[in-house]
Amino acid sequence: MERMLQKAVSAKSAVATLTTEQKNKALAAMADALIENTEAILAANKLDLDKAKGTVSDVMLDRLMLSPERICGMADGIREVATLPDPVGRILESHTRADGLLIEKTAVPIGVIAIIYESRPNVTSDAAALALKSGNVCVLRGGKEAFRSAGAIVDALRTGLRKAGVTEDAVHLVQDITRESANQLMKADKYVDLLIPRGGAGLINACVQNATVPCIATGTGICHLYIEKSADIDTALSIIENAKTSRPSVCNAAEVLLLDKAIAPTFLPLLKAKLVDERAEHPVELRLDETAASIIDGTSAGEVDFDTEFLDYILAVRCVEDTDEAIRHIAAHSTGHSEAIVSKDSTAIAAFTAKVDSAAVYVNASTRFTDGGEFGLGCEMGISTQKLHARGPMGLRELCTYKYIIRGNGHIR
Amino acid sequence: MERMLQKAVSAKSAVATLTTEQKNKALAAMADALIENTEAILAANKLDLDKAKGTVSDVMLDRLMLSPERICGMADGIREVATLPDPVGRILESHTRADGLLIEKTAVPIGVIAIIYESRPNVTSDAAALALKSGNVCVLRGGKEAFRSAGAIVDALRTGLRKAGVTEDAVHLVQDITRESANQLMKADKYVDLLIPRGGAGLINACVQNATVPCIATGTGICHLYIEKSADIDTALSIIENAKTSRPSVCNAAEVLLLDKAIAPTFLPLLKAKLVDERAEHPVELRLDETAASIIDGTSAGEVDFDTEFLDYILAVRCVEDTDEAIRHIAAHSTGHSEAIVSKDSTAIAAFTAKVDSAAVYVNASTRFTDGGEFGLGCEMGISTQKLHARGPMGLRELCTYKYIIRGNGHIR
Repeated sequence: MERMLQKAVSAKSAVATLTTEQKNKALAAMADALIENTEAILAANKLDLDKAKGTVSDVMLDRLMLSPERICGMADGIREVATLPDPVGRILESHTRADGLLIEKTAVPIGVIAIIYESRPNVTSDAAALALKSGNVCVLRGGKEAFRSAGAIVDALRTGLRKAGVTEDAVHLVQDITRESANQLMKADKYVDLLIPRGGAGLINACVQNATVPCIATGTGICHLYIEKSADIDTALSIIENAKTSRPSVCNAAEVLLLDKAIAPTFLPLLKAKLVDERAEHPVELRLDETAASIIDGTSAGEVDFDTEFLDYILAVRCVEDTDEAIRHIAAHSTGHSEAIVSKDSTAIAAFTAKVDSAAVYVNASTRFTDGGEFGLGCEMGISTQKLHARGPMGLRELCTYKYIIRGNGHIR
Repeated sequence: MERMLQKAVSAKSAVATLTTEQKNKALAAMADALIENTEAILAANKLDLDKAKGTVSDVMLDRLMLSPERICGMADGIREVATLPDPVGRILESHTRADGLLIEKTAVPIGVIAIIYESRPNVTSDAAALALKSGNVCVLRGGKEAFRSAGAIVDALRTGLRKAGVTEDAVHLVQDITRESANQLMKADKYVDLLIPRGGAGLINACVQNATVPCIATGTGICHLYIEKSADIDTALSIIENAKTSRPSVCNAAEVLLLDKAIAPTFLPLLKAKLVDERAEHPVELRLDETAASIIDGTSAGEVDFDTEFLDYILAVRCVEDTDEAIRHIAAHSTGHSEAIVSKDSTAIAAFTAKVDSAAVYVNASTRFTDGGEFGLGCEMGISTQKLHARGPMGLRELCTYKYIIRGNGHIR
């Protein structure tokens, strides 16, 4: 590990100073190499699948499985990154002082970025492509289920880098998939400039508690929808259905519905019809607080249901007195990802947008839009739920820092 | 402590949503209250001074000492912050999608900011003013030498807040000045959004190693000057003199001189004349590597001299083969604060500015300019030497984060 990290640090300057053309050429070569090595990648993936069968769920097996089409998809993803604007070298601010000293705030790569992630093999190529385009060296540490697949993918990517004349030390894969190697990465502040954990709450929390490397926590989303009493009922129902059921396994799906008590008696039966009765295939399980349970049938909600990222067809429902109580509930239970208000009342909307302290605050729209592609970033390395550096979807620009370059002519102070 | 932090969190939303006018009125009242409470503040300061006498240096005693003039200076500092633009609510980016969804990236306060600092009492009022203007609640934890002074200052500031109709819970002072209270703050990720340690390397390192709260490390500056062989000699001498001797106790003062070997025989005697022989009152002690020591007299440098923030009239001198060796030395020894090249060679300058990875990289100018006031920020909370979120001088804008506010009309994905 130590030797790999030293190599990563040594490659920093060369990778940071690549031209846009060199980076795009390298990305094209990485994509080509993935396709050329399809057979080797599928063979490695088969070993991962054989090992995983019987120990993980079918959903997990499907996420782990590669096919020629999926490898093509990964290559296309890399080629798309090549088409995005280069975030490095942008002059963010420029200021010439009265004495002629020129101060430029310039976007530069962060340096060495470590990413700890879980099973999906495509994260390996996505993360490597985003890191390279933003001039960063990456150190990837995937999950143990996809270990062989990730190895074959990184071999191909490094072959592509070499062919394009770029140091293969721009992309590293940690070979030792143990808890110890994750801990080593978290403590490698001597080498690593940024750690991005992508995974469940356990991984994120381990990083927050143990890391000495600066971290950006990503992806845990207990997202709230608040239906204010003036809301248009059809709009509210359509947004809830979309936010809860269009893809319940992702972090921008809604987990909790907060509902103004005043409209609960009319709204809840319609909610039950829409999310339960009319959905034969995937009815949503409603976990109801006492007030809601007195109006419609459903499971009784325990306190834990308002602090759980279900990632499933389950929705916790709580009735509130007013907008202030909704805001207070969100402050106490949210993970800071995405929250929405459905309302026609400008006072309620203004209070909600001003006081809800999450990465994305929606007015009359579904939380499902919190995504790099939807926000126009073209891609994303994850969705930051913390406040420092980057918040919400992190694209190429969020993988940069800045430095001041100051040009004088013998200026002294 | 826990109760204070809960109060700080409770005040967050009220402080974040103050209007510019309310904040400026509160700042004016805080400044007035400092002046009105001059007597009480001086009395508290006398107790601190009496306690400190004999246990700290005269320089430290002077930093600790308040006078009516110094209290006026603190009040003026607060009034200046009131004149600065409000950083909150700025629309950083705005984007309407083809489907009509409006996405606005909006600057918002970070929330609760904790600041751990050392002896100077004026940091107490500066930090409180900057936090308030940027809509943040602050939790201040000063050094034990200035404990009573800080208490009297915060009492006055809170009186000012109350008079202006703003919650006094915008500004908190930790009463328990023990290592334990610093540790509690570092671990208070449930309550504190950002921790800014302002002090020596020991404090900064303790925060990096122990904090679970996101930190911005500030202020340690092992700043380098590199004199490239094409440099104008008079310019080089003038910049070195300024960077080393104009105020050696501050973090943007130069500590290390890197000198192209090719010009060492002519340059070093001039350096000695300028920094040693012509400075009867405060001659600079030169700590010389082997090559330099073979040319002029001085102290022999040990390896530790190239990793020390002297904050004194001491300069470590090392001769290098070329620009690449200078860049490598800086990469290995710098704290990431400020470095300068003196040169007329555009290739050397381009390599230095591209490859040196510090907050501020100077060309033919003194490192002493790294300062919020000099950079046009109007003020500063410290100088960040890390890469995430803020780098270099941190002004009001750097005390903000952003959130996305997205407005739709029933938009679903």
